[in-house]
Amino acid sequence: MALVHYPVVNKNGDIIASAVTNLDLHDIARAAKTYGIKSFFVVTPLVDQKALVEKIVSHWTEGLGARYNPARRQALELIRVEETLEKVADDIRNRCGISPKTVVTSAKSGFKTINYGKFREMLKSSIPYLLVLGTAWGLSEGFITSADYVLSPIKGPADYNHLSVRSATAIIFDRLLANETY
Amino acid sequence: MALVHYPVVNKNGDIIASAVTNLDLHDIARAAKTYGIKSFFVVTPLVDQKALVEKIVSHWTEGLGARYNPARRQALELIRVEETLEKVADDIRNRCGISPKTVVTSAKSGFKTINYGKFREMLKSSIPYLLVLGTAWGLSEGFITSADYVLSPIKGPADYNHLSVRSATAIIFDRLLANETY
Repeated sequence: MALVHYPVVNKNGDIIASAVTNLDLHDIARAAKTYGIKSFFVVTPLVDQKALVEKIVSHWTEGLGARYNPARRQALELIRVEETLEKVADDIRNRCGISPKTVVTSAKSGFKTINYGKFREMLKSSIPYLLVLGTAWGLSEGFITSADYVLSPIKGPADYNHLSVRSATAIIFDRLLANETY
Repeated sequence: MALVHYPVVNKNGDIIASAVTNLDLHDIARAAKTYGIKSFFVVTPLVDQKALVEKIVSHWTEGLGARYNPARRQALELIRVEETLEKVADDIRNRCGISPKTVVTSAKSGFKTINYGKFREMLKSSIPYLLVLGTAWGLSEGFITSADYVLSPIKGPADYNHLSVRSATAIIFDRLLANETY
């Protein structure tokens, strides 16, 4: 999966580069490790933000944090930092020998979407899939429409649709990858 | 639901009172609002921590934050702060005329548990249920065994079981309360 910090939109719909949130890295890495995700790509074109992510990850994978909390190390080892989604796709193609199909998520409705059952079926094939989530107020519309697939928005019973990206990611992993009927 | 900061255990299994994490309040309140949870109780016996939660909540429900982000206001309005779980039960009894049954969660195995299907059935009755999650390294064992029910741990396909309480809460709400087949 990839967590994208550019191009995303702010509250007013302007395209921005968002700042990396430390707890996004920890929460999503832990959920990714729990659900068997192969890699967690953090996408930001900003040099200082890339350096920040690398510093956090190395603290927990090589530094004092690795000894203090080995479980956290296992999770944060899944993190890779890339400047663009194209570079993420290159990385996956280099490892798998085949380009990934991109599946983006959006809390907005109005896109032609696939549901979770359909995506679960697709995951049984040998094609690599890259699940892409946006930070701030979400991925830009151009970015969403250029993806291979758009996953249905998460809906609860209430008429309220403002999950954090951390919560949304955990729910999506569980819907797609929980290995038992609960 | 209730998020408990005492009695919980630390990394070494000692019973402690944990510090409140700002993002727990935001993420869990937003997920609670999405899934139609009635109230989100933050349980801490520490006076300074109670004051901190009240300050954060009032910023977003009455202060500048309420105007900046009305969606966040709606979520944080669900938060109530109480010193103990007994006081939470009193609050619910006062509002519903009946004491709640407590359902605790634990990442540990070894307890007699109910699964998510069973709990979904239970939620169709008129009895109020209080879902209780712990912070730090989880609720104390004595606390777990004194609850009415223990919910099955969340398991992914991987042999790794270290979700954040924010992620676990989102997944539990979705398993119990998502109103459509996805």
